[in-house]
Amino acid sequence: MNPDTAAADRRFVLSLGCPDTTGIVARIAGFLADAGAWITEAAYHSDEDTNWFFTRQAVRADSVDCTVDELRERFAALAAQHFHPDTEWRLTDSGAPKKVVILVSKESHCLIDLLGRAQRDEFPGEIVAVVGNHSSLGELTERFGVPFHLVAFDDPDVSRDEAFVRIAAIVDDHDPDAVVLARFMQILPAQLCERWARRAINIHHSFLPSFVGARPYHQAFARGVKLIGATCHYVTAELDAGPIIEQDVIRVDHGDNVADMVRQGRDIETLVLARGVRWHLEDRVLVHGAKTVVFD
Amino acid sequence: MNPDTAAADRRFVLSLGCPDTTGIVARIAGFLADAGAWITEAAYHSDEDTNWFFTRQAVRADSVDCTVDELRERFAALAAQHFHPDTEWRLTDSGAPKKVVILVSKESHCLIDLLGRAQRDEFPGEIVAVVGNHSSLGELTERFGVPFHLVAFDDPDVSRDEAFVRIAAIVDDHDPDAVVLARFMQILPAQLCERWARRAINIHHSFLPSFVGARPYHQAFARGVKLIGATCHYVTAELDAGPIIEQDVIRVDHGDNVADMVRQGRDIETLVLARGVRWHLEDRVLVHGAKTVVFD
Amino acid sequence: MNPDTAAADRRFVLSLGCPDTTGIVARIAGFLADAGAWITEAAYHSDEDTNWFFTRQAVRADSVDCTVDELRERFAALAAQHFHPDTEWRLTDSGAPKKVVILVSKESHCLIDLLGRAQRDEFPGEIVAVVGNHSSLGELTERFGVPFHLVAFDDPDVSRDEAFVRIAAIVDDHDPDAVVLARFMQILPAQLCERWARRAINIHHSFLPSFVGARPYHQAFARGVKLIGATCHYVTAELDAGPIIEQDVIRVDHGDNVADMVRQGRDIETLVLARGVRWHLEDRVLVHGAKTVVFD
Amino acid sequence: MNPDTAAADRRFVLSLGCPDTTGIVARIAGFLADAGAWITEAAYHSDEDTNWFFTRQAVRADSVDCTVDELRERFAALAAQHFHPDTEWRLTDSGAPKKVVILVSKESHCLIDLLGRAQRDEFPGEIVAVVGNHSSLGELTERFGVPFHLVAFDDPDVSRDEAFVRIAAIVDDHDPDAVVLARFMQILPAQLCERWARRAINIHHSFLPSFVGARPYHQAFARGVKLIGATCHYVTAELDAGPIIEQDVIRVDHGDNVADMVRQGRDIETLVLARGVRWHLEDRVLVHGAKTVVFD
Repeated sequence: MNPDTAAADRRFVLSLGCPDTTGIVARIAGFLADAGAWITEAAYHSDEDTNWFFTRQAVRADSVDCTVDELRERFAALAAQHFHPDTEWRLTDSGAPKKVVILVSKESHCLIDLLGRAQRDEFPGEIVAVVGNHSSLGELTERFGVPFHLVAFDDPDVSRDEAFVRIAAIVDDHDPDAVVLARFMQILPAQLCERWARRAINIHHSFLPSFVGARPYHQAFARGVKLIGATCHYVTAELDAGPIIEQDVIRVDHGDNVADMVRQGRDIETLVLARGVRWHLEDRVLVHGAKTVVFD
Repeated sequence: MNPDTAAADRRFVLSLGCPDTTGIVARIAGFLADAGAWITEAAYHSDEDTNWFFTRQAVRADSVDCTVDELRERFAALAAQHFHPDTEWRLTDSGAPKKVVILVSKESHCLIDLLGRAQRDEFPGEIVAVVGNHSSLGELTERFGVPFHLVAFDDPDVSRDEAFVRIAAIVDDHDPDAVVLARFMQILPAQLCERWARRAINIHHSFLPSFVGARPYHQAFARGVKLIGATCHYVTAELDAGPIIEQDVIRVDHGDNVADMVRQGRDIETLVLARGVRWHLEDRVLVHGAKTVVFD
Repeated sequence: MNPDTAAADRRFVLSLGCPDTTGIVARIAGFLADAGAWITEAAYHSDEDTNWFFTRQAVRADSVDCTVDELRERFAALAAQHFHPDTEWRLTDSGAPKKVVILVSKESHCLIDLLGRAQRDEFPGEIVAVVGNHSSLGELTERFGVPFHLVAFDDPDVSRDEAFVRIAAIVDDHDPDAVVLARFMQILPAQLCERWARRAINIHHSFLPSFVGARPYHQAFARGVKLIGATCHYVTAELDAGPIIEQDVIRVDHGDNVADMVRQGRDIETLVLARGVRWHLEDRVLVHGAKTVVFD
Repeated sequence: MNPDTAAADRRFVLSLGCPDTTGIVARIAGFLADAGAWITEAAYHSDEDTNWFFTRQAVRADSVDCTVDELRERFAALAAQHFHPDTEWRLTDSGAPKKVVILVSKESHCLIDLLGRAQRDEFPGEIVAVVGNHSSLGELTERFGVPFHLVAFDDPDVSRDEAFVRIAAIVDDHDPDAVVLARFMQILPAQLCERWARRAINIHHSFLPSFVGARPYHQAFARGVKLIGATCHYVTAELDAGPIIEQDVIRVDHGDNVADMVRQGRDIETLVLARGVRWHLEDRVLVHGAKTVVFD
C-alpha cells in the first residue's frame, strides 16, 4: 500500500455507550473539534427502550493534534468529569492492527475464507494463530503462513477440562482482540465465556433463536422451513443465546435434503461470520445487555 | 379478457402424491399423451427421506379430448389399477375459479392487498366472503363489492365457542377451497382445524419456528434478531406448527423499535400470505406429513 | 392516537448538506444543545468523492424551548454566520403533515397500496389528491375519501401540452411536498421536471440503469436476466436518469414469461415506491448532484 | 466416501432441448422406465415464446440395466427415430468427473473459493489446471496441489495473440468441460469464444446489462445505485452479452465508496460464479438462443 494512502486511511475510532441525556453529542463533538479532528464517520443511536445512548466516531488520525494515547487520556478526563459512571468507551487506532485467534475443528469453509481475506489484505486484523481440536486443518493453515496448534479432544490421557486449559493458554498468550469460533463445534466452558466476554465470537448454523444446539440443519429439514440461516453472536455461558451481531438466510426448497442444506448453508455461514468479525474488529459493535448496536 | 386468450390460458391441473416406485412418471405421461394433452408445466419431486413421490402437471384444457370430469374418471380408473392405495391426487380446472373466505380482525393490510389483487384480476380465485370479529374492516370490504359478516367476539351474550359455530356456518355455506386467516388473531378450535384441514391458511408474523404464539415482534425485539420474518402455513391443532407453505424475511437494525418492526413486518406478511394463497389455489402445494412440497 | 403519545412522537427534523470542513458537527450539536433539544436520531455522512457533508437530526419537539419557526430563524442566523453559502438545509415539523399528490394512469397496485397505508395511519403525510389520465382509478380513489381529478390524454380537443397545463394547475393548487408518479406512464414535460425538482418521485419498473424507457419487463425477458427490479427516483428532464432513492429486486426464472414478470414485478414496484416516498416525506433523502444520501 | 454411498449417489443425467410437441415427456419417460431407471430428479420447461421444450432427468446409475454408453446409444436411436433433427441432448455420468480449467489474473477471491470447494469435496468436478497472466496466484494454486501455468501478457516479446495461442494450447490439452474466467480481466479472442462456446464461463462484476465493460463498480458508484451485483454468463464474442446463468445483488449505501463496493462485491462475485459453475457442471444449464434454462 502507498504510505500516503495508508496515512490518509488511518483512523482513531471512539465508541461509547452511556445512559442517555441531553448534550452528549455536543460534548463529544466539541471535544473532537478542539482536537482538530476531521470526522469521517459518525453514527449515533438513542435507545428508547433502555434509555441508553450509543455512538461511534471515526476521525482521520493525521488530523488530530496528538497521539492516540494522549487523546485517550484527554477523553478519560472529559468522561470522568461529565459522563455517567456506567459509561463504557474505547478509543482505538486502526494503525495498530487487532489480533485474532481462530478456533476450528474439521470444517474448513470459514477458516479458508478468513485466511483468504487476510491474504488479499481485506481483513481488518491479523490472524496470529489457529487452534484446532483435530489435525485436519493444520496443513491448510500453515500454507497461509499462520501457526497451527493442535489440542486433540480425543486423547484418552487428556480430559476435556485439561484440553480447554491448554487452548486457553495458547489463546491468552496472544491477548487477542477476537477469539473466533469458526465452526469449532465445542461448547466453551463457562469460565472461558466469562474471560473472553465480548471477544469470543461464534457462528451458529441456524437463524437463531430457531434450532439452538446440535444439528440445526437436521432440525430445519424436519420442520420444513423455506429459508435456512446463520447467526454470528458473542459467546455467553447460555448456549446460542449471546448477543447477535449478524444474521442472514438463503432460500431452500423441497428438493434440498439435509446434505444440500449443509452444503448451501456453508456459504451463508461463511459470509455472516466474515461480516460479524469485520464489524467487531472495526469497533462497530456495541453491546448492551443481551443485544448489540451495529454501526455498519 | 379476450375469449381466445382465456381459452388458451385454461388449464387442467393434476397433482399427485404417492409412495415412490419406478414407472410412475411414464404411466402419467402415457396417460396424458393418450388424452392428447399438451403439457405446459410439469414438476416432479422424489423425496428420499419419506420415499414419497410428488408431481404436478398442467395441461392446456383445449388440447384434451374430453371434459375435466371425464378425464378425472379415466385417471381414477388408472389410479385404482396401478397406483398404491395411499395415493392422493386431484385434478382441477382453472376455468372453475376456486372460492376463498377470508377471516379478519382489525388489521387491514393483508385484506386490502388480497382485495386489490382480486380487483386487478391477478388473484387466482374468487373472494366470496369476509368474516370479521370486529366491525372495523366491514366498510372497506364492502367497498370492494365483497360481503362482510360480523361475528363479534366481545359480545357478552355470545360465548367464544358459539361465535366459532357462527363463523363455521358462514364459511361452510360457501364450501370454500381456502379459508384464509388474514391476521385473524384468534386460535381456531381443534374441530375447525380438522374440518378445514389443508384449506385453512394462516399468516404468522415471525420466521417460524422462532417466536411462536403472541406478540412475536416483541419477542424478536427482545432477542435482538437482525432479520424479522413471516410464515404462511396450513392451520393445525398445534399452534403455529402446521406445514409451512412460504416464508420470507426483511432486515431490521438497532434503530427499529417494536412499532417499526410491526410496520415493516406488515409488508412481508402481506407478500408471504399472497404468495402462499396463490400457490395453494393453483394446486402448487402438496402436503405430506408435517411438510409441504411447493411447485412454484 | 393518544395525545400524549402524539406529543412525544412529534419531531423537529433538521437536514443539511454543505461543503465539508472541520467543526460542523460540533456547531450543530452545540446549537441543538443550547435549544435544549433531545436528539432521537442523528445521522452524518462525509462524502470523500465530492467533499460534501450531510446530516439529518431529529429532536423531540417537546424538548425544544421554542417553536419550529423560531428554531428555524435561529438556525438561519447560525448558518449565515458560519456555514458556506452553498449550504442547503431545511427544518421541518412532523406535526405539520406533508401533502402528497399522486399521478396515476390505469395500473392500481401502487395507488391502492399508498391509500391503504394512509388509511391505517402508517403513511407519513396526507394524500390530498389523485390525478389520473384515465377514469379507471377514480372510483377506487374516492372510496378512500380522496378527491380524484381526471385529465384525459385521449381527448382529441385537448393537446398533450394542454393536458399537462391542467395537471400542473391541479397539483400546484395544493403546493404539495411530493408529486408521486405511481405508474403514471407519461413523460413529464421538462418545465414540470424543473418546477417539481426534488419533489416529483417516479417508480420505474426495472433495476436502473438497465432497461430505461418503455416496456422494461419485455426488455428483461429478452435479455434473460435472473432478477427483475424496480427503482424509485426523483424525476429529471433526462428520462429515467434522476437521482435514485431506492431499488430492490426479486428472482425470476425461465418459467416466468413477460406476464408473470409484470405480475410479480408489481409487488416490488409497490414496496420500493412506498419506501422511497416514506423516506422523502420524513426528510431522509438528501440530494447532491446526480445522487442521493438516504438516512434510513 | 463410503463406496456404497458413492454408488447410490451416482447419476446418469439426461438433458435435452427440442422443438415442443405433444408426447415428448411420455416418450422419454417410457424410455427410462424400459431401462428400469429410478428417476431422482426430473424437470421440464416448455417455452411458449420460442416453442422449445427442455428437460433434465437424473436417474440412479445403479438402477439402469446397462452402461452409460449403451444407454446413450439406445437414446440416440430413439432420438433419431422420433425427435426433431434440431434436438440437442447429452447423457452424462456423474461418476466420470468433469474437468475444469480456470483462467485468472491477480484477484484471488474466486480462485481460492473454488479451490476450497474442491478441497472439501463439494465441487462437482476436478480442477485440472489454472492459467494465470500474472505470476501472483501461482503459489496459492500450487499450495492446493493444482498445476499453475503462467502466460504473461506483459512480455514485450510475446504478442497478445501469441499469448492466447499459448493459453488455448494449455486449455485444449485438457479438453475441459468448463473454462472458468475467474476475474481473468482479459477479453477472449473471437475464435476462442467460438471454440469454447457453452463451456467458457465468465463472472462479470455488475448486474448485467448494467455497466458493461471496464470498471463497473466505478460506473455503479457514479450512477448512485442502491444495489450492486454480479453476473455469471457464458462467454460470447459480444462483450458481456452472453447467455446469463446466474445473477445476484447486495445492498450498498451512500457510505460505501468504490473501494467498499469492490470489497463487498467480491463476496457476491464469488458466490454467483460458484453457483453458475456448479450448475453448468451438473448439466443443469440448457442454452437456447441468447438465454438459458437453469434447472437448479
